[in-house]
Amino acid sequence: MSQVWKEYQEQHRERFLKEMMDLLRIPSISAKSEHKEDMIQCAEAVKASLLASGCDKAAVMNTGGHPVVYGEKIIDPAKPTVLVYGHYDVQPVEPLELWHMPPFEPTIKDEKVFARGSADDKGQFYMHVKALETMVKTNTMTTNIKFIIEGEEEVGSPNLGKFVAAHKELLKADVILISDSSLLSMENPSLDTGVRGLSYIEVEVTAAARDLHSGTYGGAVANPIVVLSKMIASCHDENNHITIPGFYDDVNVVSEEERALINQAPFDEQEYKDEIGIKELWGEKGFSTYERTGIRPTLELNGIWGGYTGEGAKTVLPAKATAKISARLVPNQTSEKITELLLAHFRKIAPSCVTVNAFEHHGGEPYGTPIDSKGYQAASKALETTFGKTPIPVKGGGSIPICHTLESELGTKIIFMGFGLDNDGLHSPNEKYNIENYYKGIETIPYFHQFFAE
Amino acid sequence: MSQVWKEYQEQHRERFLKEMMDLLRIPSISAKSEHKEDMIQCAEAVKASLLASGCDKAAVMNTGGHPVVYGEKIIDPAKPTVLVYGHYDVQPVEPLELWHMPPFEPTIKDEKVFARGSADDKGQFYMHVKALETMVKTNTMTTNIKFIIEGEEEVGSPNLGKFVAAHKELLKADVILISDSSLLSMENPSLDTGVRGLSYIEVEVTAAARDLHSGTYGGAVANPIVVLSKMIASCHDENNHITIPGFYDDVNVVSEEERALINQAPFDEQEYKDEIGIKELWGEKGFSTYERTGIRPTLELNGIWGGYTGEGAKTVLPAKATAKISARLVPNQTSEKITELLLAHFRKIAPSCVTVNAFEHHGGEPYGTPIDSKGYQAASKALETTFGKTPIPVKGGGSIPICHTLESELGTKIIFMGFGLDNDGLHSPNEKYNIENYYKGIETIPYFHQFFAE
Repeated sequence: MSQVWKEYQEQHRERFLKEMMDLLRIPSISAKSEHKEDMIQCAEAVKASLLASGCDKAAVMNTGGHPVVYGEKIIDPAKPTVLVYGHYDVQPVEPLELWHMPPFEPTIKDEKVFARGSADDKGQFYMHVKALETMVKTNTMTTNIKFIIEGEEEVGSPNLGKFVAAHKELLKADVILISDSSLLSMENPSLDTGVRGLSYIEVEVTAAARDLHSGTYGGAVANPIVVLSKMIASCHDENNHITIPGFYDDVNVVSEEERALINQAPFDEQEYKDEIGIKELWGEKGFSTYERTGIRPTLELNGIWGGYTGEGAKTVLPAKATAKISARLVPNQTSEKITELLLAHFRKIAPSCVTVNAFEHHGGEPYGTPIDSKGYQAASKALETTFGKTPIPVKGGGSIPICHTLESELGTKIIFMGFGLDNDGLHSPNEKYNIENYYKGIETIPYFHQFFAE
Repeated sequence: MSQVWKEYQEQHRERFLKEMMDLLRIPSISAKSEHKEDMIQCAEAVKASLLASGCDKAAVMNTGGHPVVYGEKIIDPAKPTVLVYGHYDVQPVEPLELWHMPPFEPTIKDEKVFARGSADDKGQFYMHVKALETMVKTNTMTTNIKFIIEGEEEVGSPNLGKFVAAHKELLKADVILISDSSLLSMENPSLDTGVRGLSYIEVEVTAAARDLHSGTYGGAVANPIVVLSKMIASCHDENNHITIPGFYDDVNVVSEEERALINQAPFDEQEYKDEIGIKELWGEKGFSTYERTGIRPTLELNGIWGGYTGEGAKTVLPAKATAKISARLVPNQTSEKITELLLAHFRKIAPSCVTVNAFEHHGGEPYGTPIDSKGYQAASKALETTFGKTPIPVKGGGSIPICHTLESELGTKIIFMGFGLDNDGLHSPNEKYNIENYYKGIETIPYFHQFFAE
C-alpha cells in the first residue's frame, strides 16, 4: 500500500501542513484560566478536523475541567482497534521576551514550524489525524481507530482518569498509541519504552506580614529568600544525590544488563552540550546521562521568586519567597507518596522563624512498556520501513501523567511512537517541530496500523 | 519665638499638608528609566516650593543623572549656615497588588498620609521647607539656610559626590541637617548617630543557552536555581554569621560601654514582633536586635527570580536564575572593598557547570556622628523642647549613601533629625507618614536653628 499512501500524501502535502499550523494559532494554555474560551475553541477545531479527516463520529466531551475530544472510525468490530491519545493543550509561553516570533503565530524557518505546541503535542497528534485521512481516502484502513485528545496534559490530567473510568466501553482498544515524545535523531530512530512520573508542588515561605526596609530590619528579621535557599540547597548532596529521607525507597533498581543496553544508544557528549549550550554534563554520580534522565528520579526547581525583581535596585527585606518544585519519578515510585513526602519534608525543614505554605500542583505515575509486545513490534517494524533502520528502545525522561491510568483502566499497553527531537524546545521559548519529522510521522503511522493488524 | 511659630503653623496647617501631598502625586521613581520626565517635573515642583516658601533663590541643577534642587535663604553671611539635605526620589512600588490604595494618590486614613515617599523622604524634607516658611514669614530667621534636595538617593547617589565636589563654595555650611530617619517612638524620641553603608550587587547564574524541558533534561543538566540557592545558603552559618572570608575584617568593634548604652533604649519584643508580623526575632548570635541593625553589618537577599513564576505549573528547567543582594555596612568597612569582595566571592563559589554574571548596582559608605557636637546638642535641645523628653541617641540601620562624601567634601558634621517611625513601611507597600509626626517636625525644626545659632 506504500505507493498509494505516498501519492496521496505528496498530493496533499501543503494542506497537511497548513491545517496543523491553523491549530497552532489557538492559544490553548491549560494552566491559565484566562484561556478557558481558547480551550473550547481548540477542542471544537480538533473535533472538526477529525470529522473532516474521516472519522464517523466525533464529539467534544465535558470533564470537570477542559473538555476531551473523542473521535472514531470503525471499519469492522472484528478488527483490532487502535486508540490514539494526544493533547491539544500547551504549556505557558513565558518568558515571552525570549521568543523570536509570537508563540501563537506559527512561522516557518529553516524547514521548521516555530510555535508553542508545534511538537508538544498538536503537531504530533495531528500526524495521526492526517494518517487517518490518508488511509480513509485511499480505502486502505486495516484497523479501527479511536482518538482521545485531551486538554489537560500539561497540568497533570486531573480529570482524565475519571473520564476514562466512565467511558471504558467507548475507549476499548487493543493498543494505545501516543506520539508525544522524541527520536534520538533522524539517523538513530528510537522508541520510548516508558515515561517518568511527576510530583509537582509549590512552597511559599513567609517571614513577616509585609515587605520591610532592609536597613531598618535587615539583620534582625529572617530573610525568606535566604531561608528558602537553604531549604532548597539542602535537598541535593555533593554527588547530586537527593537527600530527602525516603525519596529513593521505592526506586526500581535497574539490572546491569538493562543499564548496558541503555548505554549502547549513541551519545555524542560535545553535540549534546553544544545543542543546549551547557558547559558541563551534570547529575547524580555513578550514572550516565541516559540513565540520569531515564531510570533515575530527579528533583527540579522549576521557578523561584521573591522580593524586588525589577530594574535597578530596591533595598527591601521581602515578606516571602516562593518556589515551584517538581520531581520526576521512575518505577516503582508513586506520585501520591512522593508528593506527600516532598510536602512534609519542606514543612519539616523550615526553621521556626517562618511559616510554610506547601501544596500540590499535580502529579502523574511513571510508566513502562515491554518491547516484546505486539504493539511495540508493529511500531518497530513501521519505523524500520520508513527510516531503514531498527529503532533503539530508550527510556523517556518526560512524563505523560495519564499513562498509568490508561493502562490500568483499559487493560491495554501503551506504545510511544514520538517523532519529535530533543532540541524541539518543548516547554521553552521558540518551540519548533521539523517539517521533515511531521511528514515522516504521517508516512510511518499507516504502517503501524498495517503491521498491528497483521 | 515659640508662640509666633505656633500661631503661624496653626493658621497654615491645612495648606502645609496639602502641599506635601501634592508632591507625593509625582511618581519620582529614580530606579526606573520610564520615570525620567517625572523626575524633572518633581525637581521643578521642589524648586517652586522653595521659592514660594521664602528662598531667595532656587535652581534645578543638572548632574550626570537626575537633577539636584538647590535653594537658599541667606540672612547674614556672618551668621551660621545650616545645609538641609533631602531627596525627592522614591523607591519602586512593587508589589503593586499589596497596596491598599494607588501609591501616588496620597490618601489620608487614621491620621496618616499613605503614599510612596510620604515618609521617605518627601514628607520629611518638606518639613524643612515649611519650617523655613514659618521663620521667614514671622521674621524669626536665626541662621542662613541652604537646601540640597537630590533625586538619586534611592539608587545610591551615583552623581551627587561629583556635584558636591564641584559646588563646595555654594554648599558651604556649618552643619548638615537631614530628616530621613525614624524616632524610636513618639514617647521615646531619639536621634540617630549614624547610618549604615551599603553594597548592592546582582548575581546572575546561567546554566544553559535556553530554558529546557525538565523531563527531557532534568537530572542531566545543572539547575541554576539550585546552584544559586546553594551559593546563597552558604553565605550564613548556623549562627547567622556571614561566612564570606574577609567580610568582617574592618568592622569597628564597639566597646562594651557603648553596647550597654545602645541596649538601654526601650525595646518591647512582643510589640516589635506584632508590628511587622514575625514569629521570632532573628539575627547574628550574641547581639541584641538594636545591635544587629545598628553596629553589625548584614547580608540581605533583596530579590530572586528564575524559571516559571506564573499561575499553575510549568515543567521547565530554567536557563538562569538571578538574585539582588545587598550588604549593610558599619564603620570602618568601605563600600568599594565589600562590593569587590562580594562580587569576587559569588564568582568564586559558583560551580564550573554555570556561568556567573555579577555586577554592582550601587553603594554608600557607613557614617557616624558624635553626640558632643554643637549640632547634635542643638537637635537634642530642640526635641527636648517639643517632646518634653531628652532624645535617646541610637544607631540607624538604614543607609544614606552620600553622608560620608558630604562630610569629607564639605568638612561639616551631619545631624540626623528624623521624624518617621519604623512602622512607616519605607520601601514597602502602603508606605505612610503620620500627620502628627509631620507637624511635630515642622514645629521642632525652627528650634534647631534657634539653638544652633545661639
